[in-house]
Amino acid sequence: MLHPDHLFDPDPTRRALARQLYESVKDLPIVSPHGHVDARLFADPGATFGSPADLFILPDHYVTRMLYSQGIPLEHLGIPRQDGKPVETDHRRIWRLFCANFHLFRGTPSGLWLRHELSEVFGIEEPPSAANADRLYDALAEKLARPEFSPRALFERFRIEVLATTDAATDALEHHQTIRASGWRGRVIPTFRPDGVVNLDAPGWKENIERLSAVSGVDVVDYASFVRALEQRRAFFKSLGAVATDHAALTPAAAELSPREADNIFWRALRGRADAADAARFTAHMLMEMARMSLEDGLVMQLHPGSWRNHNRPLFERFGPDRGGDIPLQTEFTRNLLPLLNQYGNDPRLTLIVFTLDESAYSRELAPLAGHYPALKLGPPWWFLDSPNGIRRYFDLVMETAGLYNTAGFNDDTRAFCSIPARHDLWRRASADWVAGLVARHLVDLDEARAMTVELAVGLARRAYKL
Amino acid sequence: MLHPDHLFDPDPTRRALARQLYESVKDLPIVSPHGHVDARLFADPGATFGSPADLFILPDHYVTRMLYSQGIPLEHLGIPRQDGKPVETDHRRIWRLFCANFHLFRGTPSGLWLRHELSEVFGIEEPPSAANADRLYDALAEKLARPEFSPRALFERFRIEVLATTDAATDALEHHQTIRASGWRGRVIPTFRPDGVVNLDAPGWKENIERLSAVSGVDVVDYASFVRALEQRRAFFKSLGAVATDHAALTPAAAELSPREADNIFWRALRGRADAADAARFTAHMLMEMARMSLEDGLVMQLHPGSWRNHNRPLFERFGPDRGGDIPLQTEFTRNLLPLLNQYGNDPRLTLIVFTLDESAYSRELAPLAGHYPALKLGPPWWFLDSPNGIRRYFDLVMETAGLYNTAGFNDDTRAFCSIPARHDLWRRASADWVAGLVARHLVDLDEARAMTVELAVGLARRAYKL
Amino acid sequence: MLHPDHLFDPDPTRRALARQLYESVKDLPIVSPHGHVDARLFADPGATFGSPADLFILPDHYVTRMLYSQGIPLEHLGIPRQDGKPVETDHRRIWRLFCANFHLFRGTPSGLWLRHELSEVFGIEEPPSAANADRLYDALAEKLARPEFSPRALFERFRIEVLATTDAATDALEHHQTIRASGWRGRVIPTFRPDGVVNLDAPGWKENIERLSAVSGVDVVDYASFVRALEQRRAFFKSLGAVATDHAALTPAAAELSPREADNIFWRALRGRADAADAARFTAHMLMEMARMSLEDGLVMQLHPGSWRNHNRPLFERFGPDRGGDIPLQTEFTRNLLPLLNQYGNDPRLTLIVFTLDESAYSRELAPLAGHYPALKLGPPWWFLDSPNGIRRYFDLVMETAGLYNTAGFNDDTRAFCSIPARHDLWRRASADWVAGLVARHLVDLDEARAMTVELAVGLARRAYKL
Repeated sequence: MLHPDHLFDPDPTRRALARQLYESVKDLPIVSPHGHVDARLFADPGATFGSPADLFILPDHYVTRMLYSQGIPLEHLGIPRQDGKPVETDHRRIWRLFCANFHLFRGTPSGLWLRHELSEVFGIEEPPSAANADRLYDALAEKLARPEFSPRALFERFRIEVLATTDAATDALEHHQTIRASGWRGRVIPTFRPDGVVNLDAPGWKENIERLSAVSGVDVVDYASFVRALEQRRAFFKSLGAVATDHAALTPAAAELSPREADNIFWRALRGRADAADAARFTAHMLMEMARMSLEDGLVMQLHPGSWRNHNRPLFERFGPDRGGDIPLQTEFTRNLLPLLNQYGNDPRLTLIVFTLDESAYSRELAPLAGHYPALKLGPPWWFLDSPNGIRRYFDLVMETAGLYNTAGFNDDTRAFCSIPARHDLWRRASADWVAGLVARHLVDLDEARAMTVELAVGLARRAYKL
Repeated sequence: MLHPDHLFDPDPTRRALARQLYESVKDLPIVSPHGHVDARLFADPGATFGSPADLFILPDHYVTRMLYSQGIPLEHLGIPRQDGKPVETDHRRIWRLFCANFHLFRGTPSGLWLRHELSEVFGIEEPPSAANADRLYDALAEKLARPEFSPRALFERFRIEVLATTDAATDALEHHQTIRASGWRGRVIPTFRPDGVVNLDAPGWKENIERLSAVSGVDVVDYASFVRALEQRRAFFKSLGAVATDHAALTPAAAELSPREADNIFWRALRGRADAADAARFTAHMLMEMARMSLEDGLVMQLHPGSWRNHNRPLFERFGPDRGGDIPLQTEFTRNLLPLLNQYGNDPRLTLIVFTLDESAYSRELAPLAGHYPALKLGPPWWFLDSPNGIRRYFDLVMETAGLYNTAGFNDDTRAFCSIPARHDLWRRASADWVAGLVARHLVDLDEARAMTVELAVGLARRAYKL
Repeated sequence: MLHPDHLFDPDPTRRALARQLYESVKDLPIVSPHGHVDARLFADPGATFGSPADLFILPDHYVTRMLYSQGIPLEHLGIPRQDGKPVETDHRRIWRLFCANFHLFRGTPSGLWLRHELSEVFGIEEPPSAANADRLYDALAEKLARPEFSPRALFERFRIEVLATTDAATDALEHHQTIRASGWRGRVIPTFRPDGVVNLDAPGWKENIERLSAVSGVDVVDYASFVRALEQRRAFFKSLGAVATDHAALTPAAAELSPREADNIFWRALRGRADAADAARFTAHMLMEMARMSLEDGLVMQLHPGSWRNHNRPLFERFGPDRGGDIPLQTEFTRNLLPLLNQYGNDPRLTLIVFTLDESAYSRELAPLAGHYPALKLGPPWWFLDSPNGIRRYFDLVMETAGLYNTAGFNDDTRAFCSIPARHDLWRRASADWVAGLVARHLVDLDEARAMTVELAVGLARRAYKL
């Protein structure tokens, strides 16, 4: 069992307050408006999580990157190679390797989430080690085979009010349709992510466009039909419960092209003649266009800029994307977002939630922007920053200037379904601890503190995402 | 009444030390070497602050921006439109709107200052709310009508030793002259801010130059006469007590032009033919020139770079400047200030006080520069950063490298006169708390701590500004 | 005597844990894998530290910069002028000036180190002041004359396991040879620093190349012979115990040139015709080349980018380099290191230890890179950042994402030999305090904490530097 004071500042005054505030939110339902869980898990009532390695290691690039950074080849962790050459397939051996290196996760959020999952979901209190690896493997495998550890059963046990997945604009959303049709009451909703079709330099862009034509029923032959196809897809996502879109780009640059320019670039792209400058300008333009559509159809717009994807090219070529090789970049918002905010930022029909991996922008750019523009909300700490210190710095750097009510609550943003309660619990504890610090310094009173803690746990996310 | 331990760390050892240190400075006079209070308030002995909305809401863009960010139109807050269309004029209704949304200020410095002012200046202990809005309005209105709540009376009650205003280079300073002539003993001094004439792209630059000719008596027809006119104005400001100049620019770039280049650009500007590159180079040149003049006339030079003014263009067009739409930018000092520091930075006759909205420059550039160049002092946390956490980060990031004695104490930098005690009190509490932390960790002893706390409260500001 | 709780957080729970953890590492030997102590001190068994001013003031640009920043001319501190004009030579007067201004070091790491050295090395407990300057001078001078205060004696008393110096690629390492030949058992090893020959714009580059030819025995006439000469020098350094190289550059840019391009640039440089662009490209290329050599010869590669050397040009011209006028720059790693990391970063034979003066890169770029690439380790807080708060921020910003085991322990990086114990003690205290904070919040358990504290004190440095 997790220590009841897990994560709380040791000062007795503050800790007592943190406990009290945390108590009031710890059992609230989980609102998960942004993440990467596979909807397939919930489409099939008989789905399971597979082996302990399937659950804890293979899909979690936070885990594999740390092992890799210490010289453990990804082949030994069972990560499939692009060239099909053999990799470790014995999940027990993979699990042993992970357990023998569990010390690498000391003081990391991955270490905390893993311990939390093992303890709270599976009742395992020992930290993994070379010595107990086999015993833990057996205990986990035995539990994972039981029906009460099926994805749907855990969804309910975790008290998930809503779980948003992230889906390509070209996705047929068959799993979401199956879930709806199944009569199961869990709320799993898609999120519209058009990166693969709006970023001209996305891998496989041309095929994505063809797929877009196919799924939308709109023959995409020029910019105008492209826009119509996107509008069709957005409506379709909405029909399956989507409340939001999501956009990744190297920078948050937004700048409108003339219709003729947009059409020319799109024409060149269709013929394979668009260059890097075209792609950058088109992505910036499409951000404007997506804001315009959000204004009209009410989908909340999420922006996740500043990650250099697949920085480690040799690793990418061997293992494909999402292996821990995405590295953040300096990110500028004040100049880049100006055109978008000047055009749409004063319109209360738009909600634009912005994330960053560049903390230097928190107090300098993002908090002042969120504290001014009605349309802009600041998303929670993202990716590497979703950690005890990362969350603390976020509160410290953002809240005084943006104001709590211009933030968007929490996202778990995870592929690892079983880590969802751990991540929300960490956020709720960190929130309670931060608010307790304000009370202990007499900056807010206890009534205000209670209201703030509930907002952070569920209220802000529900309102920001119109849930 | 504010809690006696307001803002202090809850650790009992540290808190006891903080209390003791704070006690030794809390009643010291207020030294306010930089701010934006209207001198008119003190020129007329019968001046009042008007209604509660006049005092707390209308002039305070920290307050209006937060309400605006949550979708409240500025028209409802009584902010006048540039096109003269009607806005709310019922101050009681404006006040109610503010009170009903007071929760938005939870955990923000505005919230703390407002509570502090209400409590310490007006004896109102309840936080504003929809329920008590009318009662509070009446209580405040009644007090504001009394002579002991006149600006001059409060100036004395606040124990203000000196209050510096900020004034355009072209300002005739009639209110400062009236104050001097009136025999009233409050020390209200002007500060020379030439942005409107040295930044060629300032709105109304041509008219400003004409006004400069008029007030200086120097016919500005070329660069040489422009410089003479500026020297005349500086001397005039000094004659009314000015100790400093103030300079805002998008970047801190400083670079000397040849006299011919300066003259050519100025000539083009007079004919309306200067372009953006001209303006940038001329501003950089004038920063050098202003340092040269400061060396000669002894006026302390303040530099406030890195704010993108009027970022929200539609809002600017509707309501004019200073409505909360100024957003910080990444700011580079090491390369930009090099020419100025190489030319004047070793000269002890110059004092250059630098501010920033980009905290990433604190430990990286500004503290190392301040810890080296005799002329450079680091100003206190500016604007958004003048908050409990902002001040704590400043101490954390700056003091070890710059050294306390290369910093410039505190500026309240406010338009809101009645918030001055609250702001200085917050700084003094934060200072005492920071120094207490050093003592509690045995990094300085108590005698050193006492000296440091007094320096922070008044000593550093008095010396840096030659007061 | 230093307070036993020096530097520890005052919270009783955390402090008790910090004490306990610190106790377990405080007497461990000192591992000093990077620094700037003069090997000559240990080559001559009869060497002394000279006067108190020779020891504490003259060679320590942390000390002289702070005094200079407050208007004290370097001439008064006895710093020799390049033009040979007279400067203060009375060391007692220099000492008095330092003591009279000791308050300037309040709250700075220099102040802490100086107090620590005076107390722990020399038994002097009073803080220096105008009043006790002469008395302290006499007491120190008397001690410094004794054999037990000779460099070799203090080396042993300090329990230094290994001390790495930093040496030009062209250095004959005669002091290192003398130490080896002397039979004295102290381990003093050189570090290969080729900046003077690989940075084409280094002062005296041409003479450095001639010297390189002379010491290597390879006639450097083109790029190929240049590379051979460098390989010869690396082998020579290794033969005298070197385990690492060190590289400074304005940016961490790395980019391979074709052999022809490299040869062309080198050819132009030999003829004095290389320009700034050539120099930048060649430095970036040589970083790649040095990584390639490290892969082959096993020398650990250190990279210290982002310092603008000799920013204060007039001061540099009067007093030469290393007078406190080096100022950090914004530094970008994600794009700049990409070519090097793509080529060599997955190879476990390479260890690349990266440092920064730009803390904004810690959580944004460096921790994600170190948490991914097997070759990359993150060096400890460097230069200005090697301070109580600087170290705390490093732990806070780096460890969650990089993971403890991808960091490289501590470097003292000092020219001031007698400050070495103070610096390592400060690091060990700060480490113990940080780990204690994790335990107090139940994020790691006490066994893990003990292991982490030992790693931070010695284990990580020994492994990263293959000592």
